[in-house]
Amino acid sequence: MPPPPEDRRYVITLSCPDRTGIVARISGFLADLGAWITEAGYHADVDAKVFCTRQVVDAASVPFGVDELRARFDAVATELGGTYRISDTGERKRVVLLATRDEHCLHDLLGRAWTGELPAQITRVIGNHESLEPLVTAHGVPFHHVPFPRPGDPHREAGKVTAFEKIREMVAADDPDAVVMARFMQILPAHLCEEWAGRAINIHHSFLPSFAGARPYHQAHTRGVKLIGATCHYATADLDAGPIIEQDVIRVDHGDTAADMVRRGRDIERLVLARGLRWHLEDRILVQGNRTIVFR
Amino acid sequence: MPPPPEDRRYVITLSCPDRTGIVARISGFLADLGAWITEAGYHADVDAKVFCTRQVVDAASVPFGVDELRARFDAVATELGGTYRISDTGERKRVVLLATRDEHCLHDLLGRAWTGELPAQITRVIGNHESLEPLVTAHGVPFHHVPFPRPGDPHREAGKVTAFEKIREMVAADDPDAVVMARFMQILPAHLCEEWAGRAINIHHSFLPSFAGARPYHQAHTRGVKLIGATCHYATADLDAGPIIEQDVIRVDHGDTAADMVRRGRDIERLVLARGLRWHLEDRILVQGNRTIVFR
Amino acid sequence: MPPPPEDRRYVITLSCPDRTGIVARISGFLADLGAWITEAGYHADVDAKVFCTRQVVDAASVPFGVDELRARFDAVATELGGTYRISDTGERKRVVLLATRDEHCLHDLLGRAWTGELPAQITRVIGNHESLEPLVTAHGVPFHHVPFPRPGDPHREAGKVTAFEKIREMVAADDPDAVVMARFMQILPAHLCEEWAGRAINIHHSFLPSFAGARPYHQAHTRGVKLIGATCHYATADLDAGPIIEQDVIRVDHGDTAADMVRRGRDIERLVLARGLRWHLEDRILVQGNRTIVFR
Amino acid sequence: MPPPPEDRRYVITLSCPDRTGIVARISGFLADLGAWITEAGYHADVDAKVFCTRQVVDAASVPFGVDELRARFDAVATELGGTYRISDTGERKRVVLLATRDEHCLHDLLGRAWTGELPAQITRVIGNHESLEPLVTAHGVPFHHVPFPRPGDPHREAGKVTAFEKIREMVAADDPDAVVMARFMQILPAHLCEEWAGRAINIHHSFLPSFAGARPYHQAHTRGVKLIGATCHYATADLDAGPIIEQDVIRVDHGDTAADMVRRGRDIERLVLARGLRWHLEDRILVQGNRTIVFR
Repeated sequence: MPPPPEDRRYVITLSCPDRTGIVARISGFLADLGAWITEAGYHADVDAKVFCTRQVVDAASVPFGVDELRARFDAVATELGGTYRISDTGERKRVVLLATRDEHCLHDLLGRAWTGELPAQITRVIGNHESLEPLVTAHGVPFHHVPFPRPGDPHREAGKVTAFEKIREMVAADDPDAVVMARFMQILPAHLCEEWAGRAINIHHSFLPSFAGARPYHQAHTRGVKLIGATCHYATADLDAGPIIEQDVIRVDHGDTAADMVRRGRDIERLVLARGLRWHLEDRILVQGNRTIVFR
Repeated sequence: MPPPPEDRRYVITLSCPDRTGIVARISGFLADLGAWITEAGYHADVDAKVFCTRQVVDAASVPFGVDELRARFDAVATELGGTYRISDTGERKRVVLLATRDEHCLHDLLGRAWTGELPAQITRVIGNHESLEPLVTAHGVPFHHVPFPRPGDPHREAGKVTAFEKIREMVAADDPDAVVMARFMQILPAHLCEEWAGRAINIHHSFLPSFAGARPYHQAHTRGVKLIGATCHYATADLDAGPIIEQDVIRVDHGDTAADMVRRGRDIERLVLARGLRWHLEDRILVQGNRTIVFR
Repeated sequence: MPPPPEDRRYVITLSCPDRTGIVARISGFLADLGAWITEAGYHADVDAKVFCTRQVVDAASVPFGVDELRARFDAVATELGGTYRISDTGERKRVVLLATRDEHCLHDLLGRAWTGELPAQITRVIGNHESLEPLVTAHGVPFHHVPFPRPGDPHREAGKVTAFEKIREMVAADDPDAVVMARFMQILPAHLCEEWAGRAINIHHSFLPSFAGARPYHQAHTRGVKLIGATCHYATADLDAGPIIEQDVIRVDHGDTAADMVRRGRDIERLVLARGLRWHLEDRILVQGNRTIVFR
Repeated sequence: MPPPPEDRRYVITLSCPDRTGIVARISGFLADLGAWITEAGYHADVDAKVFCTRQVVDAASVPFGVDELRARFDAVATELGGTYRISDTGERKRVVLLATRDEHCLHDLLGRAWTGELPAQITRVIGNHESLEPLVTAHGVPFHHVPFPRPGDPHREAGKVTAFEKIREMVAADDPDAVVMARFMQILPAHLCEEWAGRAINIHHSFLPSFAGARPYHQAHTRGVKLIGATCHYATADLDAGPIIEQDVIRVDHGDTAADMVRRGRDIERLVLARGLRWHLEDRILVQGNRTIVFR
């Protein structure tokens, strides 16, 4: 469902070399149009000398459509030497979910889409287990089973290549705003990280950079940490090292086994992924180097 | 699914007047049976002079079944002047959910039951809106529609009485271990609070005792608090004043409208209810006066 | 110690009726001066139709001093129908502390001033117990003892009036940016709330609006809450009901007595007061009705 | 100040191979004495097959003194094949603090000792900067200056050896229950880690195992994490890898520079160290392998 006309917004994000007068240039441009700003965020990265901003304007206050706004803003961005993006909340965003048998994040996102809380449509779920199908389709979302070869399969590497190629094609067909690995547990090949750059979102079940890689809760249990966490980040070719979008933790104690941590950690994985994905879909995130600016 | 035999446990909870020797009496009784204690919690309420304990023993280490254990422990409890309960994790607990259109808690609990994370079977969902049916039945749980009369209906009070009587009968048929008001939004009549005493669990969408009653997020927004919360409590005839099981909060700021608080608060409502219900089902909670002891 | 010249900032805060073009007007004004904006925050209160902003500019980038900046900005503010304030971080802020025998907040703030972490000078501590003197003077801060009559004293009301008049005079002499009741435990008379409006900061030892008034930890223990908190707020004539600046909570459980809560709550009182006071001194707070906007 | 007689407690901690009947043996022993148990904690490490317990008894309920209790309990512990410790809260614990110019943790602990909140006497502070002296002595605690050679000093290694030998002697003279490195910033030599094993407590300014070693806040800023933390742990020869006692985190965002993280992190360092030290002094911690059991 699109928002009612009075809630329709244009969201402008821009990064450019820092100097004086940037805010004046952008806000002057918007004031001249009579555009009503409903949210504004600014950040200057002092080290990189880069300025970032996110401006939200009431669509009804702009005397023309989003294409004309883009065309006119292009001159401003060019003048500032910046890169920008303008999105229209009247255009529904699209999300593809990649999932496996650890289905708590999948279930959570399906629920948020069902109740309208997720500001996007889930166009399809791609899973490597058929068992996911009934629940996904019950939520009115198409499910596609792409099997992955099991450990020990002599053609495992070739099978993975084939599987990822099928996934790539399905994603390309939907051209989504986000490809979410909702505990997908397969390492994304480098060429897909590149093809989906800035759109591929992963949830890792530890407070990164601690416990990257496999079985993070078991690592956490062995080390005896007193808090466990989850990290939502953009996937890059460097495993578990992409720009961090959101993190959170919960307290554990000596009574929690590794299995307890696995169970309890699901609550924080669900929340961290849902928050990170929402911010991505609302164009609240700019990536600067390997760090994110999140305008909340 | 029942737990595998090696994970089957008997859970003993007891309250009695405080004096020396209680632990020795109980642990001596268990040691004589050769029972292996896997968890033990103790609490003495100094003001009320009441001692509370929860002991978990490995069922495989007890040379007879739960009924015989109950029969033998009864003598110990009588000697201590206490009240007790022994449950067997091999007997699946049952839960009835009461729900309405704010369905985020309902969806969350259905998901936890689906993945096996909830240590109970949801025997049925009773809702006052037919629109809940498809999602509930998709999770393999029976749904029963009990309509409530709308505001302005001249027979509203009589209609409510009829509706709650239908609910009472269905609950009585299932004899569940918990009746969960998963954002039910109807005030439970006093006779049902009594009939379901110690089993009726409510989630209130504020950090009680702040903002009891209607529209708590709007009250919170007006007061300008910097954290909003949720409270899971046993329902009693005194509205929103029953023993508190669990609470948690999240940070808000001046940029959050009341509608933002409603949306963001759902995340904490889901978690607080799921945690509180789990503890209840695991017999971790003893009620002492209007306060709960939660053995975690 | 004033900040080094390259860290000196002018901080502009403004509230005015909301309309289009406000950001453009202010940022245009600053751009024309060549002023380098280092921080900028915006907030529109949709209900009250009021726009609020905080802008921080590098003093070295402004071609004249703060007085001239004020004079020129006055025209902008008048045009926008707003009220504003410009402060200069090169001018050291001043704080007066009112304290009593619960001295943990006092000790904490003295330490933060000692290490330079508090962005202000504590000009004096006024206490109603002589026992505070050695510690205060050891930190190099003047201490003034103003005794309050004890309960049962037949001249208690008159004695309080006299005591508060002495305090009023000392505060007037220092003309501080903040008067902090660091667990002062005396109810401020209405005329002082008015005289110190927007500068009198209190720490209340509960998560308001829960447990206003006396002995909040004992109230919390009786109610059986699972989190206890503290609230930093502007003092107004309406006891414990002024605009909330900051709040936080910590988890307690059934094992915590009221005395444990008193002890453990100190940690959160210290932190909440220190954070709230810092934001006040950095001109991050605007009061709108009974709510605060905190630009962080 | 010792506690009043009615608050005096004997605290028994024991670790032994796990088997049935341990609780019965200990509680039977205590019941036979008429000892009143005020707190009891149990934990079984399933992997290591080790049982741990902490029992607190009211000293007034035991018909003899702590030495006799130790003598009698020794037989129980021997029978169980365990190691144990019995402490008497009537005997004041002693703490030595090692400090340097980052003095926020030092100031915090001095304040807690001053108000009686720390359950111990600080027998002395040893610092490598003379500037700490006035504040320490103002709190009535002896200060000892032990200078460390600066980087570039040709005799640096020898100078360190000399300095640590002086510290060792002073600590040996006090025979404290805890040696606290309150942001000491010098790496403890292996022989001191051994000599002070189980008593040397360090605060590391990151959420370990992330960002061990130098400049953790700068590492955190570079990685772009969304939470920063602090870790209180027992010092071992393996730097920043000893058993973790307590950890906590606070939220940061893209607006926080590394310097902001340094400042904001102090609040969490203070709290985490104070909590960890308190638990150590209250004999709440048992070390099992490289993990701690904390009975709260």
